[in-house]
Amino acid sequence: MSASTDNAALVIIGDEILSGRTRDENVAKVAKWLNEQGVQLAHVRIIPDDAETIVDTVQDLRKEYGYVITTGGIGPTHDDITAANIARAMGRDLVEHPVARKMLEKSYGTKDLAPARLKMALIPEGAELIKNPVSGAPGFQVENVFVLAGIPKLVDGMLEDLRGRIRGENAVHSDTVAVFRGESDVADALSAVQDAHGDVAVGSYPFYRDGRGGTNIVVRSRDTGAIEKALHDLRKRLDGMGVKWQDGEAKV
Amino acid sequence: MSASTDNAALVIIGDEILSGRTRDENVAKVAKWLNEQGVQLAHVRIIPDDAETIVDTVQDLRKEYGYVITTGGIGPTHDDITAANIARAMGRDLVEHPVARKMLEKSYGTKDLAPARLKMALIPEGAELIKNPVSGAPGFQVENVFVLAGIPKLVDGMLEDLRGRIRGENAVHSDTVAVFRGESDVADALSAVQDAHGDVAVGSYPFYRDGRGGTNIVVRSRDTGAIEKALHDLRKRLDGMGVKWQDGEAKV
Repeated sequence: MSASTDNAALVIIGDEILSGRTRDENVAKVAKWLNEQGVQLAHVRIIPDDAETIVDTVQDLRKEYGYVITTGGIGPTHDDITAANIARAMGRDLVEHPVARKMLEKSYGTKDLAPARLKMALIPEGAELIKNPVSGAPGFQVENVFVLAGIPKLVDGMLEDLRGRIRGENAVHSDTVAVFRGESDVADALSAVQDAHGDVAVGSYPFYRDGRGGTNIVVRSRDTGAIEKALHDLRKRLDGMGVKWQDGEAKV
Repeated sequence: MSASTDNAALVIIGDEILSGRTRDENVAKVAKWLNEQGVQLAHVRIIPDDAETIVDTVQDLRKEYGYVITTGGIGPTHDDITAANIARAMGRDLVEHPVARKMLEKSYGTKDLAPARLKMALIPEGAELIKNPVSGAPGFQVENVFVLAGIPKLVDGMLEDLRGRIRGENAVHSDTVAVFRGESDVADALSAVQDAHGDVAVGSYPFYRDGRGGTNIVVRSRDTGAIEKALHDLRKRLDGMGVKWQDGEAKV
């Protein structure tokens, strides 16, 4: 995949996710938000809180994808090493940002601003801040790299501040038809629809509900007209096979 | 990180996760299961249903990590391209496995075994099967690569069949102390504990509950004695600072 403003990679920096201690919520959150901005999430990595891994991962992905978003590791403690290593990855010094310091003073008061808290004002030289409406400690943007907190509630707030700074040309749309039949019963029909409609991607996702099996058929494209044409074809084929269908996803 | 039987990478093959349509459940599930086997999940990638990406990712990771587990894309439909591309990545032919065919015949009956279903018996030459107690369609193992279904319920069953085939020397253990204070209030104490106990990793995870903030402090190590020593030191330091603590995680 080549870097364009239509695609993005997400890097989750988090021992707590890799250990299974915390269940990730940020992949789905960031994926949906990017899609609303017309940008497709094309790649995700979950990596440990390790300096070399952070540097290598960010350097690789920011060449390959239009935007790189990181989450995690920007708090006040010794294991929060993201800012320092993003600075290294971008060949910049880590400096105190005066506006970030003001944001922290506003949240914590000047007299409670211990060195640990002040650490959260250290960001790569020349980076732009990303506002954090919840706790005050900001994220930052350096070129095409966007560094966010790891806590999902903070990610929500920071994404809000990124509207307009991350924007692509074409959102990927999708529409779903559900059947209460297994995937293999409809595999040939899906194949035929995919062959006849090269401008959409046809995916199928089996589910189980109340002891019955079924399949959600998802048609994706940047072109909503192409989706409608493919779905029309699909519904006709299902009718011809005597397979009952419903528009919209069957929830499990 | 170097390949050893103590570490693993997970590759989630799934447009439906990248689009935000489906929320991943397999990272936490596989992480916990690996930990029980004494193996540490060290790296995760989520990639699209794309042939070249699957081949490149598996070839890269299986050199770097002791085990590579993939989930997704082994069903009967045209977009299920995992088996064919794992075969390519490993330089093997894709062939019908007689036992896999029998498993499918048992689940679906011989007369209902349409070509789409038979596709699920095609696996790389010489691969060992991974039993699927739910739907019959098996996964497979080729050298250090383990190919599982994507549906979490099927992953559960397949992991059960992998017990003994994936095993490491040392599980990573962890123990948690919670404080109802922000991360920055305890940052110096955590730093001191980390400095004094090089054989553990000290992590901190802020939470919010009932409008109060707090921090779960997690100490991880392969050595449970080292964890207990570090926690003893931590509790003493917290007492000295007048910070109340509780053993065990504070649930949000």
